[in-house]
Amino acid sequence: MNIITISREFGSGGRELGKRLAELLGYDYYDKEIISIIAERHGLDEKYVEHTLSSSSWNNTTLHFRHSFSSPVYFHEPKTELLIEQKKVIDEIASQGKNFVIVGRNADILLANHNPFNIFVCADIEARIKRCKDRAEEGEKFSDKELKKNILRIDKNRKLTRYLITEKDWGMKESYHLIVNTTDWEIKKLAASLKGVVEGYFEQNENK
Amino acid sequence: MNIITISREFGSGGRELGKRLAELLGYDYYDKEIISIIAERHGLDEKYVEHTLSSSSWNNTTLHFRHSFSSPVYFHEPKTELLIEQKKVIDEIASQGKNFVIVGRNADILLANHNPFNIFVCADIEARIKRCKDRAEEGEKFSDKELKKNILRIDKNRKLTRYLITEKDWGMKESYHLIVNTTDWEIKKLAASLKGVVEGYFEQNENK
Repeated sequence: MNIITISREFGSGGRELGKRLAELLGYDYYDKEIISIIAERHGLDEKYVEHTLSSSSWNNTTLHFRHSFSSPVYFHEPKTELLIEQKKVIDEIASQGKNFVIVGRNADILLANHNPFNIFVCADIEARIKRCKDRAEEGEKFSDKELKKNILRIDKNRKLTRYLITEKDWGMKESYHLIVNTTDWEIKKLAASLKGVVEGYFEQNENK
Repeated sequence: MNIITISREFGSGGRELGKRLAELLGYDYYDKEIISIIAERHGLDEKYVEHTLSSSSWNNTTLHFRHSFSSPVYFHEPKTELLIEQKKVIDEIASQGKNFVIVGRNADILLANHNPFNIFVCADIEARIKRCKDRAEEGEKFSDKELKKNILRIDKNRKLTRYLITEKDWGMKESYHLIVNTTDWEIKKLAASLKGVVEGYFEQNENK
């Protein structure tokens, strides 16, 4: 089974890259699909699940978080509980044995025993602001300053979540096979180029 | 003109990757060739030039270094003078207008106005120790501990030199188009995969 994990800075095009790679390679693709599964199982609203998982509302229970992963004790802190649910869903997906691409969710760490190919996607802040503008829905109007603030806030939360789950820093080169700066790239063409890199990697490491 | 710069952690296979990419793409290749040019021009021993450029012997003149790049004042500190010479040689190479790969020497910064494609090559420390052993000359016997110490010392000097020349940190993802961790790769196969990525990049950015 080949797994590609994509971690990404907000607005860097990581999600599009993951989707395109999955299409080109014929792999399954998981991103918000995981949110939908959790929401459906627990009768929750998808937006609530998504918002809670990406929020910074850890309160005081965060200190217990890593412990709670391996413990039956729940602390009734919504983010903690949802992160545990998310881990379960990811493990279930992996247990199906099919090739897939997964975006975000610290899947590089959660799936480490499956030897995934780990990509981190970043871009210069100006390029990320531009991407956010390009994909904004009609009527959505934010200034560059507001967009930048939002981008940095989201990244800060991702960094914090990663550290609390994994004790590892986010976006450090030691954790990934490849870090790609998409600033000067069209994602569609980048995906086509990276297809060969990923295939080459799995070919070399198929018996590991 | 297409330029590929390769920065690399010691023992990560960056030099081999650069050489193979140059071969595959039909580009010129520069690494120790630059040392030879400097040595020949100034009647110096190549080993002396190489050793001085990679040494940590900056003494007190380091504070003047960045200034001296744009100033006719020389401080008669060997490493500083050789770095200035090295910059001249690199500028001359670029002025020829031919495609090339250059390994090390902070060429990503020195050649920034030519919009090079910048790759940083890294690997886990165990993989780097193994690579050093594999390429050791006959009779060369170092323990893993000695090799590790040596690797980390060389990287520390590279980091320091980069910071003093460029005020930028070494190996930070913001500075490169691609960071590759070679731990699980055979460099020959990696080079073949990356050829397509580099070609794709230059195709997209040829008019910039």
